[in-house]
Amino acid sequence: MGKINLGADAYIYPMPVTLVGAMVEGRANFMAVGWVMRVNLKPPLLAVALNKAHYTPKGIRAQRSFSVNFPGADLMEKADYCGLVSGHKVDKSGLFRVFFGELETAPMIEECPLGLECRLYDVVELPVNNLFIGEIVAAYADEDCLTDGRPDILKINPLLLTMPDNNYWTVGTHAGRAWSAGKKLKETQKS
Amino acid sequence: MGKINLGADAYIYPMPVTLVGAMVEGRANFMAVGWVMRVNLKPPLLAVALNKAHYTPKGIRAQRSFSVNFPGADLMEKADYCGLVSGHKVDKSGLFRVFFGELETAPMIEECPLGLECRLYDVVELPVNNLFIGEIVAAYADEDCLTDGRPDILKINPLLLTMPDNNYWTVGTHAGRAWSAGKKLKETQKS
Repeated sequence: MGKINLGADAYIYPMPVTLVGAMVEGRANFMAVGWVMRVNLKPPLLAVALNKAHYTPKGIRAQRSFSVNFPGADLMEKADYCGLVSGHKVDKSGLFRVFFGELETAPMIEECPLGLECRLYDVVELPVNNLFIGEIVAAYADEDCLTDGRPDILKINPLLLTMPDNNYWTVGTHAGRAWSAGKKLKETQKS
Repeated sequence: MGKINLGADAYIYPMPVTLVGAMVEGRANFMAVGWVMRVNLKPPLLAVALNKAHYTPKGIRAQRSFSVNFPGADLMEKADYCGLVSGHKVDKSGLFRVFFGELETAPMIEECPLGLECRLYDVVELPVNNLFIGEIVAAYADEDCLTDGRPDILKINPLLLTMPDNNYWTVGTHAGRAWSAGKKLKETQKS
């Protein structure tokens, strides 16, 4: 059948590139995270999966808040740097211009065209990682990255990540409309 | 600062488009899911967040297994259709050619260039959704979608999803190397 079994490995093609922010020991820290997704509709919850050994979880637990920032492709170098060095060893607080929202404890990145401010909702224990579930209290976007009041992915120009080949990608062209492209097929199946 | 507060809403830019497969009442069923991510390194765990009212969770719980399939852009119409109609009402078992792996209970899609076979590891309760955590027991890829033995995203040509604007996108150009693009900056910060 032409299928190759690649073994028990994870391939999520692709992942979004985000910078998760938290206040750790009084300083803003940002780590590069591709393991992030929505997990609940109402209230709006998202989850990030972080290795327990990381520096950022300490701040998330202490402050009960964190942020998820989406860097544009122009921030690739800085975003990658955040994944190369740990806050355990390096002070990353001066890397970006930081702003705070209503929680006042979740540092967000001014240079990122889109950012989500989260209140810690729950923590799920897993063998190597912890799943930090956050309730989104506000989403912040650059005014010039909106179209009809909504974030426009082509204006945001976010980065995508694939592992284990470890590559970044940009977003390409519009392919179609969701909850719409399959309508013709739906009609066919009915008849 | 030019930031617009969009309120307490979720914007993950972008999400991958997947088709989650499970055997439900003896038939293969597939639902469109963008809420999927890796959650643990070893063992390789992923999570999908499914609305409790959906049809698929019933099969996942009964069989203790599911699959996550990545459709190429050529499958957009069928993938969208899987998100438009529920297995509660429509038999989707004949939509794709189905194959099974070692678990023998997680239906996978032959037409999808990449698919992950998962054993149910845990279920996390959330208000509206359930988080189904699966341990990946095998990854299957089309031989002609590999480069140097690894899935090649440009050959897979997966779909991306943005909400709430409800659009599908393709992957664009290579932007850089992960865990590498920031190395120069790392050197600068040291000196």
